[in-house]
Amino acid sequence: MIKITLPDGSVREYVQNSTPMDVAKSISEGLARNVISASFNNTTVETTTPLTTDGTLTLYTWNDIEGKKAFWHSTSHVLAQALEELYPGIKLTIGPAIDNGFYYDVDFNGHTISEKDLPNIEKKILDIARGKHEYKMRSASKAEALEYYKNQDNQYKVELIENLEDGTITFCDHDTFTDLCRGGHIPNTGIIKAVKLLSIAGAYWRGDEKNKQLTRVYGISFPKQKDLTEYLELLEEAKKRDHRKLGKELELFTFSQKVGQGLPLWLPKGAALRERLENFLKKAQKKAGYEQVVSPHIGQKELYVTSGHYEKYGADSFQPIKTPNEGEEFLLKPMNCPHHCEIYNSRPWSYKELPKRYAEFGTVYRYEQSGELHGLTRVRGFTQDDAHIFCTPDQLDSEFKNVIDLVLYVFGSLGFENFTAQVSLRDPENPTKYIGSNENWEKAETAIINAAKEKGLNFVIETGEAAFYGPKLDFMVKDALGRSWQLGTIQVDYNLPERFDLWYKGNDNELHRPVMIHRAPFGSMERFVAILLEHTGGNFPLWLMPEQAIILSLSEKYEKYAEKVLNLLENHEIRALVDNRNETIGKKIREAETKKVPFMLIVGENEEREGTISVRRHGQGDLGTLTIEAFAEIINKEVQSSLKQFK
Amino acid sequence: MIKITLPDGSVREYVQNSTPMDVAKSISEGLARNVISASFNNTTVETTTPLTTDGTLTLYTWNDIEGKKAFWHSTSHVLAQALEELYPGIKLTIGPAIDNGFYYDVDFNGHTISEKDLPNIEKKILDIARGKHEYKMRSASKAEALEYYKNQDNQYKVELIENLEDGTITFCDHDTFTDLCRGGHIPNTGIIKAVKLLSIAGAYWRGDEKNKQLTRVYGISFPKQKDLTEYLELLEEAKKRDHRKLGKELELFTFSQKVGQGLPLWLPKGAALRERLENFLKKAQKKAGYEQVVSPHIGQKELYVTSGHYEKYGADSFQPIKTPNEGEEFLLKPMNCPHHCEIYNSRPWSYKELPKRYAEFGTVYRYEQSGELHGLTRVRGFTQDDAHIFCTPDQLDSEFKNVIDLVLYVFGSLGFENFTAQVSLRDPENPTKYIGSNENWEKAETAIINAAKEKGLNFVIETGEAAFYGPKLDFMVKDALGRSWQLGTIQVDYNLPERFDLWYKGNDNELHRPVMIHRAPFGSMERFVAILLEHTGGNFPLWLMPEQAIILSLSEKYEKYAEKVLNLLENHEIRALVDNRNETIGKKIREAETKKVPFMLIVGENEEREGTISVRRHGQGDLGTLTIEAFAEIINKEVQSSLKQFK
Repeated sequence: MIKITLPDGSVREYVQNSTPMDVAKSISEGLARNVISASFNNTTVETTTPLTTDGTLTLYTWNDIEGKKAFWHSTSHVLAQALEELYPGIKLTIGPAIDNGFYYDVDFNGHTISEKDLPNIEKKILDIARGKHEYKMRSASKAEALEYYKNQDNQYKVELIENLEDGTITFCDHDTFTDLCRGGHIPNTGIIKAVKLLSIAGAYWRGDEKNKQLTRVYGISFPKQKDLTEYLELLEEAKKRDHRKLGKELELFTFSQKVGQGLPLWLPKGAALRERLENFLKKAQKKAGYEQVVSPHIGQKELYVTSGHYEKYGADSFQPIKTPNEGEEFLLKPMNCPHHCEIYNSRPWSYKELPKRYAEFGTVYRYEQSGELHGLTRVRGFTQDDAHIFCTPDQLDSEFKNVIDLVLYVFGSLGFENFTAQVSLRDPENPTKYIGSNENWEKAETAIINAAKEKGLNFVIETGEAAFYGPKLDFMVKDALGRSWQLGTIQVDYNLPERFDLWYKGNDNELHRPVMIHRAPFGSMERFVAILLEHTGGNFPLWLMPEQAIILSLSEKYEKYAEKVLNLLENHEIRALVDNRNETIGKKIREAETKKVPFMLIVGENEEREGTISVRRHGQGDLGTLTIEAFAEIINKEVQSSLKQFK
Repeated sequence: MIKITLPDGSVREYVQNSTPMDVAKSISEGLARNVISASFNNTTVETTTPLTTDGTLTLYTWNDIEGKKAFWHSTSHVLAQALEELYPGIKLTIGPAIDNGFYYDVDFNGHTISEKDLPNIEKKILDIARGKHEYKMRSASKAEALEYYKNQDNQYKVELIENLEDGTITFCDHDTFTDLCRGGHIPNTGIIKAVKLLSIAGAYWRGDEKNKQLTRVYGISFPKQKDLTEYLELLEEAKKRDHRKLGKELELFTFSQKVGQGLPLWLPKGAALRERLENFLKKAQKKAGYEQVVSPHIGQKELYVTSGHYEKYGADSFQPIKTPNEGEEFLLKPMNCPHHCEIYNSRPWSYKELPKRYAEFGTVYRYEQSGELHGLTRVRGFTQDDAHIFCTPDQLDSEFKNVIDLVLYVFGSLGFENFTAQVSLRDPENPTKYIGSNENWEKAETAIINAAKEKGLNFVIETGEAAFYGPKLDFMVKDALGRSWQLGTIQVDYNLPERFDLWYKGNDNELHRPVMIHRAPFGSMERFVAILLEHTGGNFPLWLMPEQAIILSLSEKYEKYAEKVLNLLENHEIRALVDNRNETIGKKIREAETKKVPFMLIVGENEEREGTISVRRHGQGDLGTLTIEAFAEIINKEVQSSLKQFK
């Protein structure tokens, strides 16, 4: 008998050589139906692997990331089989699961393949899957493995095997197909009920452009047809919400080849949006005791030698700026922290004056290869909503809580309700890797965990994931399409106070090093606006909308009344536009809907006579006729309620 | 007889060889007493020069810049005489008048001189001056002149004479002293009633550091002792108001050697001051139809090749930023205009949509030699309150007027009441020097002059002073110490629309080039804050003050009431601080006076019981006991009245 420990801590006894599927069945038939993969003592196993010792078993279903990965990895075997059957003589290379599906890189060896062939391949995959073939792992010696692929004239697999150690090599067989494989499959192909091959792309063998170009076939599969349908709808919606597309439609930003790739130019509406976001955060930060500072966008190279950034990033980033004489060298700033350290250093401090919280919407520049650039999410210049808190070790606890409050306020007011957090701690087995005293690390790690608990965060702890200079807390948000984005970070830093030789006088009259906290709730204005666009599809919270209302005159006779309404709305601090063009009201409404203006206010004879407006809501239709005051009250109430409470 | 035309256009007849002083006497005895120099047909003459032909004569008094220059130049002769008498064997070089006084560069030839010798030299100057010696000009041949100075072993004067043409060389004699001199003196030394030697400095012969170092003695002189006293007081006041000193005292900004010279770091109070100035201008600009944009601080080198800035400034400025690969080159932006042109260029425009007014507080970087840097007035990075208006030629007139309105609003709200303007036009004799059609230039020049007239500006027209790309209007303000500063510029530009190939579709359905206006009412935030500091001595208009009031508790018993008052003031949007330190009220008041906080609010037993505050005004003393509401009303009224009306 062996003892199997389950994730809930319960321990059950089984006869030796029971499989994970046996365990599942012993728990419930329902679970057994849903289990699609397993891990034993933190190592991936098959659901059919006989368990020979005591250990900890985790069973995965489609709802687990590990379950999905096994599902997609297993489908890639079937894709490979289908391709081999349809295109004899092709050479397979690798076919992993990825975040959303799987791919297989194939040397088509003379065959050609295009997007229009994909439906036929999908059909073939499902035909094979319906055979309910089991995946069977088997070991092979290096010599056997090499011979197998040499016989097939597959130099790719040969190369892979040559890099493996003898005794660790395994194959997976299903139906008539065999592949070199480390394992981790679903019970059988029958549960693959829906598959979609998404695209074909070129990919170099081993990612090296000196190697041969292969053909990569991307796909995704599901246990239910309905899941695929939903996924494809989501994909369609994501395309519509692509921030590059919306940014153009809403006239928020543009790029210019002359100015340079990855350097966004913010158009008036985008700049106004950014400014509203900045003012929103500034206001909260002021309440939270932050002080704004302003620093230049360059600094002497020496500044970054001191901070360590030059050694770490110098060669890979924008190169130093030389001067016509005097031999000085400057760098575009990749971070604001060195400047803020120098501001702190501009005078001595007493513990009574700490914490100092310096905030700056600081624009930084980091070189990215042109191929890596993407809209506003990967750029070469961006503005961080940066702040650095200089405090005593004893103040870390309350400072951390305050920063979490601020981050939650920001997320809440911008409609990100769905987020998780990750606390990254030291690796206790590798203490020399880290700077700062053991005592201070313990203080900081305890402070972070306590703060995360007290604030009710849904968080995981990752041991060994801390930076060498301090522990940190990162926030991941899920957007409306269920995609995860890393936003907002809070990091403790013991390193820069050392490097910049920062001090304060303690109540013992001795000099002490302050601790630094780096934090940025948005992360960067560019990336945040991109995510917000994709999350909301441009339907921002009302307080943030570029235009909250548009006044549509029924004909030119009502132009003056439209302007009067505009003035009245401005007095109520409502951002509005007038559309007095000589167009039909139907066309004006359609265009306003496209621009996602939340309220359309139609004015004609009746409205002018009675001093009212006829109100339509974007995506909802007619709200009836209202006085300006009644409308202003509605809109201002909604603005108030969309902003969460802060302090 | 000769006909002499005077500046008022009147013509008088005199016997030939009458002198300017004779003419003055013929007009009035009073004028004759005050005349100190003269020019005839726009050439400097002595007041004793016989006039031999018809011509135009201008007589100068102490109130004219030309009069002051003659006065100071004449004093430098007496300084040289005094030095020769006190330090035999010295070698004189040059001794011109400057903006505020004069200097003489001397090779002391073994003698040493220090600041403590200056009173003795001053005494000697006044002793000589009292002799009422007349200045007498005489011509000399080049040979005579060379011989004179070779005999004195004065290689400097020899070198000067060698570069002069024979027949143009003149000497000036007074008392026992003779100097090589082009002329332009006061009638006699007797009117020099007060002299102050200000400092001693090193200066290279001909300003070239390869040459021998000479000793420069700076001085200033006046026709009345009272004038000197006033000048010295002003100098003392200017020292107190030095923006570098005030910037430190008020904790507005700092510099760091590590970040780099000429790159200001704005401390919290300075950043808040800047932000208030920016918000003030943003608000007015919004009313005036400007739209904010945001552009990066770098651009491809190509962008500045297109704009022409690279050709003009490239070699003398910060050098291009290279990338690790891809061979791209970027420049720190020295100007915002190329970026704004690219924003304009991001889509087509119809004449109906113009003017577009793009505004940005854009930080630009320009290399200055370290020796040229000075506080916030000469820096290497600064933020312009920049905007570019893209309009049709027909819109220039009204756009120009609107910009003048904005500039006057800014000056008025910041207490600059004393300013003049300069309109710079084409040189009509050199039409090929300029870009843009004759018709457009005429339109623009007429627009500027009309706008300046209509807005009642005190302006001068300078023909030939326009930039090659368009005419302009510059504002000069006088600060509280009477010093002039160039602030605010409005420039028309026909060049960049050509270079960036900008277009709009006119109502003729054809494509036309827009005209650009560059404008910056502040000029730069750095320079403006410096000037504002020196103008106000840190006593900003109330709306701009970092802290409008400070609450001083009489003892720790009233700490809580002080905090309550602070909260109430914040509800009235009054910026206040609390001083709850355990110090005497006398010390707290003295420190608040030093910090120039406009209102001190003292709270003790009576105030707490009655819910009041005892109010002191900075520099004025006690204003009595007031309720919070009454005080808030006073302060808010003053804020309103210190901001001028805009639209």
